[in-house]
Amino acid sequence: MTTSDILPQAKDFSNLYSRETLRRFPSPIKTTMAYFQDPNIVFLGAGMPPAELFPLKSLKVETHKPPFQDFKNLNPEKSSIFCDIQRDIENLEIPMDVPLSRALQYGNSRGQKELLSFLKSHTEIFHTLNYKNWDIITTTGSTQAWDAALRIFCNEGDTILLEEYTYSSSYEAAMSQGINCIPLSMDSKGIIVESLELLLENWDEMYTGIPKPKLLYTIPTGQNPTGITLCDERKPLIYKLAQKHNLIIIEDEPYYFLQMPAYNESGSTNEIDRFSSHAEFINSLAKSFLSLDTDGRVLRMDSVSKTFAPGCRFGWLTGSKPILDVFWDLHEVSIQSTCGFAQSIINGILNRWGQEGYINWLIKIRQEYTLKRNWCLDNLFKYLPMNIIRFASIPTAGMFFTIYIDISKHPLSKKMDTQQIENYFYDKFVQNGVLLTMGSWFKVKNVATLTTGTVSTKANVVDTMKNESNFIMFRGTYAAVDPAKMELGMKILGSVLKQEFGLD
Amino acid sequence: MTTSDILPQAKDFSNLYSRETLRRFPSPIKTTMAYFQDPNIVFLGAGMPPAELFPLKSLKVETHKPPFQDFKNLNPEKSSIFCDIQRDIENLEIPMDVPLSRALQYGNSRGQKELLSFLKSHTEIFHTLNYKNWDIITTTGSTQAWDAALRIFCNEGDTILLEEYTYSSSYEAAMSQGINCIPLSMDSKGIIVESLELLLENWDEMYTGIPKPKLLYTIPTGQNPTGITLCDERKPLIYKLAQKHNLIIIEDEPYYFLQMPAYNESGSTNEIDRFSSHAEFINSLAKSFLSLDTDGRVLRMDSVSKTFAPGCRFGWLTGSKPILDVFWDLHEVSIQSTCGFAQSIINGILNRWGQEGYINWLIKIRQEYTLKRNWCLDNLFKYLPMNIIRFASIPTAGMFFTIYIDISKHPLSKKMDTQQIENYFYDKFVQNGVLLTMGSWFKVKNVATLTTGTVSTKANVVDTMKNESNFIMFRGTYAAVDPAKMELGMKILGSVLKQEFGLD
Repeated sequence: MTTSDILPQAKDFSNLYSRETLRRFPSPIKTTMAYFQDPNIVFLGAGMPPAELFPLKSLKVETHKPPFQDFKNLNPEKSSIFCDIQRDIENLEIPMDVPLSRALQYGNSRGQKELLSFLKSHTEIFHTLNYKNWDIITTTGSTQAWDAALRIFCNEGDTILLEEYTYSSSYEAAMSQGINCIPLSMDSKGIIVESLELLLENWDEMYTGIPKPKLLYTIPTGQNPTGITLCDERKPLIYKLAQKHNLIIIEDEPYYFLQMPAYNESGSTNEIDRFSSHAEFINSLAKSFLSLDTDGRVLRMDSVSKTFAPGCRFGWLTGSKPILDVFWDLHEVSIQSTCGFAQSIINGILNRWGQEGYINWLIKIRQEYTLKRNWCLDNLFKYLPMNIIRFASIPTAGMFFTIYIDISKHPLSKKMDTQQIENYFYDKFVQNGVLLTMGSWFKVKNVATLTTGTVSTKANVVDTMKNESNFIMFRGTYAAVDPAKMELGMKILGSVLKQEFGLD
Repeated sequence: MTTSDILPQAKDFSNLYSRETLRRFPSPIKTTMAYFQDPNIVFLGAGMPPAELFPLKSLKVETHKPPFQDFKNLNPEKSSIFCDIQRDIENLEIPMDVPLSRALQYGNSRGQKELLSFLKSHTEIFHTLNYKNWDIITTTGSTQAWDAALRIFCNEGDTILLEEYTYSSSYEAAMSQGINCIPLSMDSKGIIVESLELLLENWDEMYTGIPKPKLLYTIPTGQNPTGITLCDERKPLIYKLAQKHNLIIIEDEPYYFLQMPAYNESGSTNEIDRFSSHAEFINSLAKSFLSLDTDGRVLRMDSVSKTFAPGCRFGWLTGSKPILDVFWDLHEVSIQSTCGFAQSIINGILNRWGQEGYINWLIKIRQEYTLKRNWCLDNLFKYLPMNIIRFASIPTAGMFFTIYIDISKHPLSKKMDTQQIENYFYDKFVQNGVLLTMGSWFKVKNVATLTTGTVSTKANVVDTMKNESNFIMFRGTYAAVDPAKMELGMKILGSVLKQEFGLD
């Protein structure tokens, strides 16, 4: 008996589905696909173009060679692997490749089996799976996965919970679908458990007439925009509250592999991590909600946007098979499947690298981002007038840092409201040559969008950051900025702030 | 003054938008992108991964060489073109390529400019544009474009019109969104104009309590499943009705370039088209609704699924810029953009072929499909007992043929209803080794799904095919079936039918 034999099945969450989901019937044509590969059947069922008319004879991709020490070596023999992705299965030298004739055909809307198999093994390396019928489905990225999750669970007028500052696209998608978005208070360690508990336990009083939430959406690691990482100790407590109040947790983890060591503010040079083994690296990482999930109530959204490239439009969802089947049904009448080129190419690279090679790559990326973050913060501390700056947290993951500027000593603070001053500083920064995004763009407004319900002031009692009206927040990124530009940006930022506040 | 200067602007159709669309606000972060390429700005605004960390050093694709006469020649020198798609813009030998560093980055969610430019020229070759502010946006295929169109225009309980038999995914998408789907009667030349007119003119009486339709969805050319092509003479009449009743026309045209000459039933060998010029080919094609559109009320959905490959998940929408802007806003919080690999590769091939080379390819594909259709029909007429078979039309486009079987002389016709007999024949065919899809799977049921409205029997008065309850319908395809299998399939079909009806 293996471990997975003794694991329980996921619980049934179909009572949380939207009317759209409940109305959706699986396509009867899908039943014919059982006969598609049957050699005894002349299959005239599906309108599939003949593969010999795909104008792609072969595809060759050059990628880096593990363990990536020669990353910047221009000699391809030392630093490159070539993936020859063949057109037809007969020509295959690499048995784990997805040939173009299949990758570019209809079907396989769950994802190509070779790629799903690699990703399942990858998942088992990094997470603990606590129920039997977990599964994976490919997506066209986590933005699409989130849009699909909203359609699957929420009707107009339903309610979800989000971190009080969150990825603006995630918020906009929910708002436009007419979903009530309720902000969760955060501190430097992420969602404040006591605040979440208060809100759920006193829901009817605090949110009179507003339906109880169905989903809790979180970006646990290197959160966008705040850069905050939800600490591991809070996760089991949040999970328990989700169990008690029957919430689905959507764990959006694009920055999971951009975790870094803490930044040393003391002025001594920051080192990047060197791991003595892959096990040490794996153990260093945040524990996922997926690893805590015994019910099948967590949907984890992964993406290659930060580990390969955003334009791949490739990600995957991990969760219970019954819920992923519902995504599958929706995908078949919307995106159909992830792009076949992306699947063939990413699968080709991953299978040539192997699991160990991919881990080397994830470590490599993390090291590059650590260097970028360190350089950014070195300059930030060097040039900015720190007496008027605060942080929600010094980022230990992701691409973003946020600064809070204390505007109480600014001459305009008595003439303008906080939003006006934020706008004023945004414009000032741009006029002087540096662009940061405004905190208010990421702020979840504590209002019910559609229902006639009311929000009691009690909802805000334990909110910390957002009531500090003498601070304005800006988000910056160190992801794609070259070192010289980063230093210049920080210099400008510092000089604008000093001038505005009459410092120096 | 050029022609486009004197063209009118598209009309405003925002009164037809869904609540979701009206609630959607353009992302404030998008406003920062104006500064993204500004050399005077240190841009810390967007979390874009550095392109040097994309593990794609180069990409090389082998495709066929125009004019494709050496299509099956295995010597790459004679028959292949190689597209070396470079990583960085500096290395570009082909100025029209989309380098990987851009194709795989965030942004460009409208589509890569080189590709949009090619597709706009292509559109101008094949269609007449009658208003000034027409535009194009890329999609992840027409299934996604249709799902997006429904979200953009329809609320739960709204109404759309579809051909009485239609692509099952299109129907399922609308049904699950709670949209009332009203079938339009068809004959061998497509939508029956008088029937459409009757329905629109008497809406309140025929569909009491059901909102008037917002969209008319049609697959004009080689329709799925019927194989029917809507004749050009009816299109201006349908367009006029759409104007009168303020309908958006969604023209779903995946099979547009699979138009073929009429099939000759006389037994003489069918020839494939040879065109003396590209102009002759272009003039031979059906006139699109887009070419009739003076208001900007037509949305044309194109796709490379049949001209390149379905797994590309790449298509485009043509329509008025204000409406496409709304798709853009939805795409940014759902699919984000079409896969960068697909865009780079398809753009690379198209720009090396040029417009003329692409037209050669479209002619080549059409010729291949003509051969397939001819062989299918040759065998169908040879083996099937034609005295019990009827056709909606002999296909002159697309991938599909449909047969209607007269069941009035079958022993079960008095014991079972039509649906049961259809199921019975489906099973019989499969048991004997041939699979066709059932007509009922594609049939739009004349019911209001959600509202409390009622459908008067008058709605059916001019329906022709669907009231003939002594016929059952099956759809077959000749797209991907090899000649020997096709002959075998038709032999089996013939022998099952002869046995069932006691013929021979």
